[in-house]
Order: sequence, then C-alpha cells, then structure tokens
Amino acid sequence: MTLNQLGVVKRSIVRADPAAVEKLSKFGVATIHEAMGRVGLMKPYMRPIYSGARICGTAVTILLQPGDNWMMHVAAEQLQPGDVAVAACTTDNFDGFFGDLLATSFQARGARGLIIDAGVRDVEELEKMGFPVFSRAIHAKGTIKATLGSVNIPVICAGTLVNPGDVVIADADGIVVVPAAVAWEVADAAEKRESFEGEKRAKFAAGVLGLDLYSMREPLEKAGLKYID
Amino acid sequence: MTLNQLGVVKRSIVRADPAAVEKLSKFGVATIHEAMGRVGLMKPYMRPIYSGARICGTAVTILLQPGDNWMMHVAAEQLQPGDVAVAACTTDNFDGFFGDLLATSFQARGARGLIIDAGVRDVEELEKMGFPVFSRAIHAKGTIKATLGSVNIPVICAGTLVNPGDVVIADADGIVVVPAAVAWEVADAAEKRESFEGEKRAKFAAGVLGLDLYSMREPLEKAGLKYID
Amino acid sequence: MTLNQLGVVKRSIVRADPAAVEKLSKFGVATIHEAMGRVGLMKPYMRPIYSGARICGTAVTILLQPGDNWMMHVAAEQLQPGDVAVAACTTDNFDGFFGDLLATSFQARGARGLIIDAGVRDVEELEKMGFPVFSRAIHAKGTIKATLGSVNIPVICAGTLVNPGDVVIADADGIVVVPAAVAWEVADAAEKRESFEGEKRAKFAAGVLGLDLYSMREPLEKAGLKYID
Amino acid sequence: MTLNQLGVVKRSIVRADPAAVEKLSKFGVATIHEAMGRVGLMKPYMRPIYSGARICGTAVTILLQPGDNWMMHVAAEQLQPGDVAVAACTTDNFDGFFGDLLATSFQARGARGLIIDAGVRDVEELEKMGFPVFSRAIHAKGTIKATLGSVNIPVICAGTLVNPGDVVIADADGIVVVPAAVAWEVADAAEKRESFEGEKRAKFAAGVLGLDLYSMREPLEKAGLKYID
Amino acid sequence: MTLNQLGVVKRSIVRADPAAVEKLSKFGVATIHEAMGRVGLMKPYMRPIYSGARICGTAVTILLQPGDNWMMHVAAEQLQPGDVAVAACTTDNFDGFFGDLLATSFQARGARGLIIDAGVRDVEELEKMGFPVFSRAIHAKGTIKATLGSVNIPVICAGTLVNPGDVVIADADGIVVVPAAVAWEVADAAEKRESFEGEKRAKFAAGVLGLDLYSMREPLEKAGLKYID
Amino acid sequence: MTLNQLGVVKRSIVRADPAAVEKLSKFGVATIHEAMGRVGLMKPYMRPIYSGARICGTAVTILLQPGDNWMMHVAAEQLQPGDVAVAACTTDNFDGFFGDLLATSFQARGARGLIIDAGVRDVEELEKMGFPVFSRAIHAKGTIKATLGSVNIPVICAGTLVNPGDVVIADADGIVVVPAAVAWEVADAAEKRESFEGEKRAKFAAGVLGLDLYSMREPLEKAGLKYID
Repeated sequence: MTLNQLGVVKRSIVRADPAAVEKLSKFGVATIHEAMGRVGLMKPYMRPIYSGARICGTAVTILLQPGDNWMMHVAAEQLQPGDVAVAACTTDNFDGFFGDLLATSFQARGARGLIIDAGVRDVEELEKMGFPVFSRAIHAKGTIKATLGSVNIPVICAGTLVNPGDVVIADADGIVVVPAAVAWEVADAAEKRESFEGEKRAKFAAGVLGLDLYSMREPLEKAGLKYID
Repeated sequence: MTLNQLGVVKRSIVRADPAAVEKLSKFGVATIHEAMGRVGLMKPYMRPIYSGARICGTAVTILLQPGDNWMMHVAAEQLQPGDVAVAACTTDNFDGFFGDLLATSFQARGARGLIIDAGVRDVEELEKMGFPVFSRAIHAKGTIKATLGSVNIPVICAGTLVNPGDVVIADADGIVVVPAAVAWEVADAAEKRESFEGEKRAKFAAGVLGLDLYSMREPLEKAGLKYID
Repeated sequence: MTLNQLGVVKRSIVRADPAAVEKLSKFGVATIHEAMGRVGLMKPYMRPIYSGARICGTAVTILLQPGDNWMMHVAAEQLQPGDVAVAACTTDNFDGFFGDLLATSFQARGARGLIIDAGVRDVEELEKMGFPVFSRAIHAKGTIKATLGSVNIPVICAGTLVNPGDVVIADADGIVVVPAAVAWEVADAAEKRESFEGEKRAKFAAGVLGLDLYSMREPLEKAGLKYID
Repeated sequence: MTLNQLGVVKRSIVRADPAAVEKLSKFGVATIHEAMGRVGLMKPYMRPIYSGARICGTAVTILLQPGDNWMMHVAAEQLQPGDVAVAACTTDNFDGFFGDLLATSFQARGARGLIIDAGVRDVEELEKMGFPVFSRAIHAKGTIKATLGSVNIPVICAGTLVNPGDVVIADADGIVVVPAAVAWEVADAAEKRESFEGEKRAKFAAGVLGLDLYSMREPLEKAGLKYID
Repeated sequence: MTLNQLGVVKRSIVRADPAAVEKLSKFGVATIHEAMGRVGLMKPYMRPIYSGARICGTAVTILLQPGDNWMMHVAAEQLQPGDVAVAACTTDNFDGFFGDLLATSFQARGARGLIIDAGVRDVEELEKMGFPVFSRAIHAKGTIKATLGSVNIPVICAGTLVNPGDVVIADADGIVVVPAAVAWEVADAAEKRESFEGEKRAKFAAGVLGLDLYSMREPLEKAGLKYID
Repeated sequence: MTLNQLGVVKRSIVRADPAAVEKLSKFGVATIHEAMGRVGLMKPYMRPIYSGARICGTAVTILLQPGDNWMMHVAAEQLQPGDVAVAACTTDNFDGFFGDLLATSFQARGARGLIIDAGVRDVEELEKMGFPVFSRAIHAKGTIKATLGSVNIPVICAGTLVNPGDVVIADADGIVVVPAAVAWEVADAAEKRESFEGEKRAKFAAGVLGLDLYSMREPLEKAGLKYID
C-alpha cells in the first residue's frame, strides 16, 4: 500500500495484537511516547472535543478530500470492534466531516473513537453518546460526497505517519501512534517506565530534589552553572 | 443603512418574527446551517466562553473601534428582550471589550447574550450570571471610550454579514446567522431535516451502513473505487 | 541581574511583601490590570490547563532552552512556600517541559503553580493534584537535560517582563505581573476600584444605562454620533 | 441577489462608471481607504504574488467550494474588459484554485487581475504574463470541478463585502472595495486628500514637526502628557 | 529503516535514477503534483528564502532535535553531487539551524539545496552563493550540538513523507516529493501533461472558454446551475 | 523609567557610543546575536518591508495604544541623527501606524529607520525614500490620535526588552538589541567571531567536513550514533 494513493480500499489489514492494545490502554500518551524513544506524537493542535476523552485502539485509516466526507461512509464498513478511525485530508481543511449520525454508525460497528486532522460537529451529542473524538477544529460546516479518497492506506495525520492496524492512543496530553509490529515491546517498556515513576514520585513528594535524585549537581557545575547571591 | 458606516445609531430595526426565533431555538447550528443550504456560518475561531453556552435571538449589531468599547454603552440602550448583541471591530483586535458590568446592563435590558469578534473578560462572573458569550479571545486587557463606531448597521462578524434584526443562533458547533426575512422558511426546513435524522439514527444504530442507506455503492464504483485485499 | 543572561542562578531575591500578595490574591486579573494603569498583562495565548485554575504568588523565574528542562530542576531548589514558577524559553517552543513528577517536587517545596510560555504534559494528573498551570500549549513531547539556562534573572514571559520576586496573578481572564515594589500600591488601588464596582453593578442591574451613569450622551453628541430611524 | 446563494450566475450587473474607476486607479489603497472614512479594507493576510502587482477594476464575484474551481470557468464568460475577478470560498481553503491557463483565459477576456481569499499556483508564469493576483496563499495543490458555487452574487472576501460591479483597488498596502454607487464621491475625496498630502510632505521634509503642523501640543498637554529629563 | 528512529546514519541509500531526476527538473511542481495524481506536496508554509530559488535533486534526509543542528554536520558527509538535504525536526521549531558556513560545506559536497521544516539564517549570503533554501522561517537564532537525531531515515517534512533517495522538486509554487521507484513514470506523465497544456493555452489565449473546451455546460446545467439577469 | 508607564516622554536618554554603533553596523544580526551569547533577538515574525532593508542605530522607544499613532508624532521630536524608532503596542494590533508622511518627518530628523511590532503602510513610497522599516504587518488601515502612550521608556518589542539608547541592528535575518552599556564589548566579540569565520569558510569550501573541523566524530560516537549500510 502506498502513502496517499487515491481511490483504494484495503479490506485485509494486520491489526496489532489485541492483548498488546489492552496493555497499552493502561498507560498515558506521555509515558508511551517516552517508552518509544520520544517519537510517534501527533502535533499538539489536535485536541479532545470534550474533557476526559480517551481512546486506545487499532487504526482504520481514511484519506479525505477537502469538504468531502464520502470516504467516512466507506470506512464504516471496514471498522471492527476495537478499531479507531484515523482521518487525514489531502489539504488543510476545517470543515465538519463527522457528526452524530456517522458516530452512531461507527459506534454500532464497535469503533472506539475518531482521530481527525480536520473539523467535526455535533460535539454535544458526541459527548452524550460517549464517542470520543480528537480533532483540529469544531465547525458546523457540512461536507459533500463527490470525490474519492482512500481507506486503509498509510496516511500522515497531524504530522505523524499512521499505518492501518497501528495502535493509536489519545488522552489529554495528545496522541501517539505505536506501529503494530512493536506494540508489545512498547507496552512492556511503558510498564517498566511507569514502575519507576511511583518511586520517584514518592521521593519528590518527600522533598528530595531532582538535582540530587538524578545527580545533576556535578554535570551542572561542569557545564558552567554559577550560583550568585 | 450602509455596511461599516461610522458614527450612526439606527433606532428602528425590523426584528425577525419572535415565533420564528422561538422555533429556530429548538435546532442546533449544524442543522440550521444545512437547512439554509450550507451558508451563513461564522468562522470556527469563535468559541463559547463556557461549556454549555447557547444563544438564540435577534441581532443588535455593533461596530467597534480597536481598543475602544464606547459603542457597547450606546448599544445597551437599543437592546430589547430577546435580542443578542453582535459586535464586530474595524480591525483584528483581541482586547477585552466586555465584562461583568456591561453584562449586567445588557441582561437588565433583556439581552440573551453576546457574539463578539474580539476579546472579553470577567468570564467566570459571566458564567455565574448565566450570560452566554461567544468570542474570538479571552483577554483581561481593558478598553477606552474615545472613538465613534456604530450601532445597528450591517456588520461583518467573523466572516459573515449580520443585519440588525437577523436571527443569530450559537451553540457548541458554532454560530449561524439567519436573515430575518427567511426565518420561518429556515425554521421549517430545519424541522423537516431533523425529522429525517431520527429515522436515520435508528438505522445506523441498528448497523445499517451509510453505503446502503444512501445507495452509495454504485456511484462509488462508477467513480472508480477499488477494493483490494 | 541582566535580562536573558545564561548559566546563572540567583539565590537571594527580594520577594514582594507576603501581606500585599495576600491582599492581591483577592482581586481578579482584570481588576488588578486596571488598577496598575492597564499594563503588565501577558499575551492572551496563555491559558489554564484546567477550568477554575487560579494562582497568586511571588515569581521564581526560569529561562529555558528549547526542548530542554534542566533548569526546572535547578529552579525547584530555589522555590519557597508562596512562590510561583515563571518559565520563559529562549525561542518559541511547544514541548512538554513539565509534568506530574516536577509538579510533585514543586508542590513539596510549597510552590503555588506554574506559568510557562511553552508546553506542559500530564495535565489530568496536575488537575488531580490541584497544581495549577497556565501554559501556551499542552504537548506530550518530552525534553532533555543538556544546556544551561538561568534561574531568577529577569525574563520576558508571554510578552511581559517578570523580575524575580514580582507578584504574579493568574485567573480565567489572563495573567498579570505586579512589580514587587508597587505591590501594596496596586493592591490598594484594586480594592478601591472594586469598591466602586459593586455600586455600579447594582445600578446597571436596576436598568440604569452606562450612557447616563458615565454621562456619555454629551460627549457622544460632540463626537458627532447621529441617531436615525 | 442574496449573499452566499449557491448555484446562481447573474449575467447583468451594474458596473461602476469606467471614468470613476479610471480616476480611482490613480490613488493608493491607503488614500482611498481614508477617503471613504476608514472602511472597506480586506484583511492584511492578502498579499500580492509578485512585487509591484497593482489592480484597479470592477468586480465580477465568484463563490467557490473548497478544493473546487468549477466556478472559475463559469466566471470567465462573465468577465468584461476592465473587470477584476474577486473569489471567496465557503470555508477556509488554501488550495491552488487558479493558474496560468485560467489566467490566459481571464486575460483574453480583458480581466485586469484576480483577488482570491484562497490559494493560487503557477505564480512565476503569472508574473511573466503580467497578470496580477492578490491571494491568501501560494499552493501547488490542484482542485476538482464537481460542486456548484455562484458568480456575481455578493460575497465576503477576506473580511469585506464585495458586490458585483464594485471597484476593487489593490496595491502593496492592501485591497480596498469601493461600492459602485459612491465611486465618484470617493475618487473626488481621494483627490482632495492627496492634494493636501504634497504640501504636508514638503513641510515634514523641511523639518516641521507633526506636533506643530497638527497643533497637537495643547491637546497632548490636556490629555496629561508629561515631559521629564 | 524506521520512521523517526533516533541515533542512526544510513550510508547506503538507493537514489532515483539521475536521468529521471534530470527529466523531472524540467517541469514545475504543480505539473509534477498533477502527474502523480495530486499527492506528494509539502504544506504551503514552506517558502523560498529568495525569489527565483528552484531545486531538483535526490533526498538525503535529516531528523533534527529542537535547537540543535548537530546532525547537519553528520549529514554533510553523506551528501553526494545532485543531492538535496531535506531536514525535519522532532517538534515545531523556528531556530536558524543552517547558515552560510554549512551551505559552503554542503555546496562543496555537490548538494543542490536545502528543504528544512524549521528556520535558517544568513539568507543574504545564501542568495549570493546561489544556494537555494526552502524553509518555514528565517531566524537569526543559533543552535547547539548536543543531541542525536538521524540521517537517511524516512522523515515527515512539512506534512509529507520523504524517503532517502526520493526526488524532491521545489519552485515558487511549493515542494513535491516523488518516490524514487516512480521517478520515471511521473516524469513521463508530467511530460505528457505539459504537452497538452501548450495547446490549451493557445485556445484560451484565442478566447475559447473553459466551459466549451472542457464541455462543462451540460454537466453544470445538470448540477442545477441557473443563469439569471 | 518604568516599563510600560503611560503618558511620559523622557527627553534625555543615554545613547550608545556612536563609534560602537558604527562598528556594530558592520556585522550581521546572526553574528551579533552569537557574540552576545545567543540572546537579544526579536521574534522572527518581524520582517523587512522591502528586500535589502538594513538598519543600525540607537533606539528611541515608543509605546503605542491600539489603533492610535499619536505618540509617533511626539517621538519625532525626540529623534536625533543616528536614531532608530522602536515602536511597541500595548496589545497585538496590525493597523498601519506609519506611512510616508511620518517617514518624511523622521528622515528629516535624521532617523535611520523604524522597527514596529504592528503594521505600516505606504510601503512602496517608503522603499523609494530609502527609509527601511521592519514590521509585523503591512496594512492600509489608518489610526487615530486620541490616547496617550509614552516615548523613551523601556518597551517590549516583538518579545525583547528595548531600553532607549540601546543599539538596534536589523537585517534580512532578523533584529537584535544590544544594550548601550555593552555595545563595545559586543562589537569586539562580533569582530573576533567574524575573523574566525573566514578561515572556517575556506576550509568548508575546500571540502573539509564539520565533523573533522570541529572534532565531532568522537563525541558523536560517545553519544551513541550508529552508522549502518
């Protein structure tokens, strides 16, 4: 499958192992991003449409044309329980490509949410339905159904490459994409990282300084830091 | 009345029929925008200052000068119960032109809220007062009272023309302006549109795909969509 | 201390009188800004990471390098109860320089919050901890610890000069900086201003117009305002 | 003709008097804007695609759909010698709606240039052809021909209302729209204003200060200006 | 090679056939983008640092860390005659990562230019040297050399995936990336497309309308377009 | 003099030594910024209004109110030969505060140019006059003369503190502010830095790599850089 190819729907995709997805769902986006070596984040202009929204699932990717949501309907058929729809557009566009009717359809298919590098609408209804969406804009502007995009090709969404089947995790801190092939590895690394955090948090709470906990005083002095009064 | 004329207050304006306003208040912005033929929306940078804010009323328009809210006080006198103040500025400006004192005055006049293509302040107090505002910015920066703008002339607010007396509806999806002359027509079209939505929603919830509900499979094939494995 | 000097930590700073800080904490940012003569505000792109966040305290300033939060740890040691960390960066950068671990450390030191002209992460945890942050962005992107900035030098944060020891007040309307030397003077002026507001509010609520309350009708007429029908 | 009505082409429009257009072409945008009473300017994000571009002519208006330039071809037929194409879009869109082929067609019709609140391409060829364009963006991204917009309805372009037949003047300072009905009046006012400027310029060049030329010293003192050493 | 992997330099990359690169260099970005099926464009915020800049060559990719240009020096060694350096950053950053010294080094290696999704400096010297750069920003701000990025891994630059060896073409209309594997195919399609353009241009210049040239009158009528007077 | 104090004109300011200014005028902004230790730069949104613009002189500072250029006229009287006017505004504002008449006045006073964190107009005339301006925007929108700002107080312009008398240098790479007290020291450091650059440039031109010139191979290896094929 080529990036950005138009007019194609791929039906058989390799989804990340559901158990690895389940394990990843227990960690925050910041932790997973660190566990992957500080890569895989979408741009911070992507925001949840309601407070507390959180998604973790396997990507079904959608490439949209500006002002046109035809491919959303094509994508609905490809969604399976545990999937997350991830929609990019061939150009910057803030129209409302998605609303409560499509959300009802996606939810009926078992989808866990939508990540869209464009606009959505009906956001109050989406919150009532408990259908989490992370988007670039909220806009009542409707779309047409006239031009082909694609479903389940690699797409670039908010600055990050997403392959169909990748694990996508979204929370209040942002959105991270974990390639399906490394889902277990990243989940394990996140677990390890988080296990260290509890201990560190206790020390910080007790008044220990990062300067001492991380032995920074010497390297800071070597770097030339001067204390004055 | 000319667009953007400075130094004028029009006292007698033709407001949309209150019953039509009442009927429009029952529909969401996205629905009304569709019912009008996908026109009349303000730019999506306009956002409610608190979650759940919603306005529907007849426009009293205000043209402000940058950093100057003198015309807000002039406008207060022209507000009648059921009105919405709609403020534009002669240039892009993010100052806080409006706060809790003016809101108290506007509310005492029966105004239902404010749409302002600029900044506001005292947003916590405004929420406590239940005075909804949709704005471009929140900014504590105060303004002076030195230069004339106008009241009740046609203005362009957030990319859309607003004539005094037009119906303005604002909710979480955005803001739409319905010309007074077509208020009934649009309200009826919105009602009709919404009546179809319930049925569609039920079908989507039952698992029917948009591909089938809207008979899209044939046009998609004609457009050249290819399914691959 | 020079603005923007790199590689320096000043240990002894002159903090504003705690009683003046206490008094300032009772007023809103918009009121304090007016009381200072409409100066001292940060840019409105700074926003609270959670609804209801509010900070008032004395500034410990931090100058960061892009993608590097080393100085956060250096700053922690300089924080005293009642302080607010105020972080600027040598260039525009949206990375997440601060999360729940540093917040635990800052909170253990008695800090009241963070103002940062850059990004933060772990925002749900920060809300749970009750550690208020006002920032330019929310971003899961982590940072390194490799380059020296400074602590407690004058910095420009979101367009405003902040000297260590200044009072910084942040609420839903924005952020204002009160130089330590005028903290009492500004607090008194804010008190005076607010005492007038109650009376005005009552008059507005009773239907008195600003046109009459502020005797604007004559100056408006002199300026040439025309009423037409 | 209603603002934003879709699917309509108005063939007979009332163009401003060519002699008034000719007279207006002699003045700069800043001068005309002042002569109209400081109204009628488009937003400053509109920029010429090449240095030295300048346009003055009567508007043929175009309402485009996002990513779709079908109406450009419809508009070509309505262009007459002396016209300027003025294109708005139903939503923010930066695609390249216009290139050298359409420019060849527009030029063959006698059009003097294009004002477009969206993107264009082939900018080097356009410069070689001497076909001036003012746009919001330069983008190689192509468009389709699938959805109806309109031609010669009132449109809002870059924040300003443009009626078909209005005079549109664009130079390095920006773009101003003069309603057809006041073209002569504004041209005369611009002439008068400019006649004063030469004299003022001579005085400034001779070292006379604005403080004295405009008798500002007394009002400044009254306003409270303090000189200190 | 994985996208965004840190700390890696790939020495052997498969460059597109030089003859195909040579052929592609004869066409404009808009034409190539159309010939590829309207994909492969970078975002339009990328602009040439001087008028008339134009690049066509094979990509050596660079992943930078914010405020750090260490990898630029590592990349220099990998550059071969005919290459274009294509630099992305792990986060949005506008610092000046590149100036006349690095340009001298790159030019000595035979590089044809730089595409950078960040800032550059010494732009007047770069123009004098005839070293074309397309960037997101011009900024005198210098960078450090402390953290590893990578060279010749797949990167996302200005919204588009670039693999080392791909053909990158940049001109006044934007930047397009042609995967090495399809370089010949795209070059041939561009040639074909351009051969049609001359004929069309002649017809447009002779006054033929697109409405007739493309037989649009009937589909416009079917779509419901109404002509009124 | 306090930052942002309103209604004040300071007549006697301490300008940097003219000989140091003269020496600084020989170096580029990037070099001076490095010589100062990478501080003192304005934000990169400031751009010259014409290609080739360059300024070096001592600052006369101006604090403007939004939409009001009264203080420009007050400042004119304070300008001396060799000065640069540096204008900030109390809020973000893009209006055209300055045009050819004021430029004529400033030029008659011996001013070398204008740096303004707002908009200007008459840009073609300014280029013809050879009066260089660096601004945030070009906008034909005029301003009024109604509210007091200040002249020769410390201001924050485009993110950087400017004290009256400081040396301000602007070229195609940006704008840097050198405090008057360190003008000689910075000029000397810039000279030293530039003397090294010629030698480095020659080595780069001869094909020497930065990896070798700066002995980076060992630290890169220590940092973990891996070369693969």
